[in-house]
Amino acid sequence: MSNAVAAYAMAGPDAAFEKVTIERRELGPDDVLIDIEYAGICHSDIHTARNEWGGAAYPCVPGHEIAGTVAAVGSAVDRYRVGDRVGVGCMVDSCGKCEPCLQSEEQFCTRGAVMTYNTRVPEEVQPGGHTMGGYATQIVVTADFVVAIPEGIDLSVAAPLLCAGITLYSPLRQWGAGPGKKVAIIGMGGLGHIGVKIAAALGAEVTVLSHSLSKQEDGKRFGAHHYYATSNKQVFRELRSSFDLIINTVSADLPINDYMKLLRLDGTLVVLGLPEAPFEVQARVLAGRRRSLAGSMIGGIQQTQEMVNFCAEHGIGAEIELISADEIDSAYERVVDSDVRYRFVIDTATI
Amino acid sequence: MSNAVAAYAMAGPDAAFEKVTIERRELGPDDVLIDIEYAGICHSDIHTARNEWGGAAYPCVPGHEIAGTVAAVGSAVDRYRVGDRVGVGCMVDSCGKCEPCLQSEEQFCTRGAVMTYNTRVPEEVQPGGHTMGGYATQIVVTADFVVAIPEGIDLSVAAPLLCAGITLYSPLRQWGAGPGKKVAIIGMGGLGHIGVKIAAALGAEVTVLSHSLSKQEDGKRFGAHHYYATSNKQVFRELRSSFDLIINTVSADLPINDYMKLLRLDGTLVVLGLPEAPFEVQARVLAGRRRSLAGSMIGGIQQTQEMVNFCAEHGIGAEIELISADEIDSAYERVVDSDVRYRFVIDTATI
Repeated sequence: MSNAVAAYAMAGPDAAFEKVTIERRELGPDDVLIDIEYAGICHSDIHTARNEWGGAAYPCVPGHEIAGTVAAVGSAVDRYRVGDRVGVGCMVDSCGKCEPCLQSEEQFCTRGAVMTYNTRVPEEVQPGGHTMGGYATQIVVTADFVVAIPEGIDLSVAAPLLCAGITLYSPLRQWGAGPGKKVAIIGMGGLGHIGVKIAAALGAEVTVLSHSLSKQEDGKRFGAHHYYATSNKQVFRELRSSFDLIINTVSADLPINDYMKLLRLDGTLVVLGLPEAPFEVQARVLAGRRRSLAGSMIGGIQQTQEMVNFCAEHGIGAEIELISADEIDSAYERVVDSDVRYRFVIDTATI
Repeated sequence: MSNAVAAYAMAGPDAAFEKVTIERRELGPDDVLIDIEYAGICHSDIHTARNEWGGAAYPCVPGHEIAGTVAAVGSAVDRYRVGDRVGVGCMVDSCGKCEPCLQSEEQFCTRGAVMTYNTRVPEEVQPGGHTMGGYATQIVVTADFVVAIPEGIDLSVAAPLLCAGITLYSPLRQWGAGPGKKVAIIGMGGLGHIGVKIAAALGAEVTVLSHSLSKQEDGKRFGAHHYYATSNKQVFRELRSSFDLIINTVSADLPINDYMKLLRLDGTLVVLGLPEAPFEVQARVLAGRRRSLAGSMIGGIQQTQEMVNFCAEHGIGAEIELISADEIDSAYERVVDSDVRYRFVIDTATI
């Protein structure tokens, strides 16, 4: 006995978003039914819906930055109650048995985590045979993949934390951002601006490396101590060998070697985006200061909860532009043009 | 009052080695005069002497794997006495004041360490204006850059530890090789074979990834638990996501992405060689298991002493072919052809 839910979907890679009715599975004993209130728009939504990464299943209902309230809980769920403020991020399930899962690093599940949208699943899991995300009025998720959102943080600005927030928080923690550490964030978009807020709240000395100075005032307001325009090549000389950690939030091709040289001894540059072209790194740039180039991908559920709690405690939310569901198509265009400050969030009451 | 010393030098990039007389500086209060007994041949010697890296100064006296005995000490030296067994590696001085130097990471001295050969220095430091290395009967080195070689390890097999040994020991320690860790060594040459011995002695599970199985028996004898020929592409599927640490000792271009995929969650691949072409790494290979690509370069003096002590304690020396000074040219050819098991060492009594 599944239940019908209103959603916004793309019928094919070139289609416009349309209001549709999808089915959610019947509430199982371990499940939580969530009334979605807000869904953030992540660049991954666009890549998937437009089939730019291949393998898209239609109708495609993106959305993995979900915030709302609990509408019902399964018989075995004691962690959540009706009315609780909750969020769902990029994953809705994983095997739970492999080494990464046992360490709550579900994003590295060796059998492959079930992503919130566009993962093939049995009909019993999601009628239609593939997961469908947060551009909808309700979703059913196993309680283990639901995150509590504390009071004191608005659900609309909390929604983007579920992907953008954990994507930055996880590497900042993994590579020790904190007092005495110099951290640079490349890019001041949806990911970068949250990275600045979190890195500053962790106590690091934060530098933004952005193409231009157009968002400098915002950056400083979010907690950045320094702000540089990378269009000025002099900057690369000035900042040489100065950072402990650089987080690259930009998916476009960058001259990564030039950025690697900005790392001091034992520094690490972490890439979050997935450009098609490989990074080209010179051995002597790595060896010359024992530098590392690393990659990171969201974070585990336990750490996602820790991140939401940390953000609530430090008054950190995303900077958002709230839109109605019929504005998704135009919002996508603006995301592609980097014309958003700093994250679009869909008010799902408008679906 | 400098003193004349017999040495083997190249007069230009295409010259053959010839016996020459060079001057060493007068013994200063902090200096140690060493009677060199053995000098290993490192591939870097060849690159430098043939000016393949540019900037070679002639006459070029290579050699930074030096073992011998103390012939005299300066008035302020109390750490060493005449007759002590000692070694000198890749560096003979550094600024001593920068952050890396204060942490005994002199190889990363921000003003540039004084390398054992081919670094421009004042005439008072080395008559001739550039440092000259271990293919000689004596050398004068500041005591801070002299390493004690414990009894129980032959000086001839200790010599290569001063460069090859520390080059492997340092990253193995830096990235936590030890019990419970799976470590792979790419390449079974001068560097690789010592890496196998040290990694095994540290308690790691050691795998050799070599082009062929021709040195498999040796590898097992040195302590490797597994040995694979990378010419068999099936190996890359079999070993996918299995190592915590991979050390690449090969300077030739490798399909580094294929090796990166052999790292498990949070694994690191460390490059030691300096190929001209950049490494090409795919973002999704990094992010998919939070993998890192890093570089390492020899090690500090304190760690070099620790390494020599560790090797003496575990009975680890290099596997060597002892040659006389008039065989250096032909030895160079054989090193370039990878035809040495596993390190040439010059008996400097033949100079």
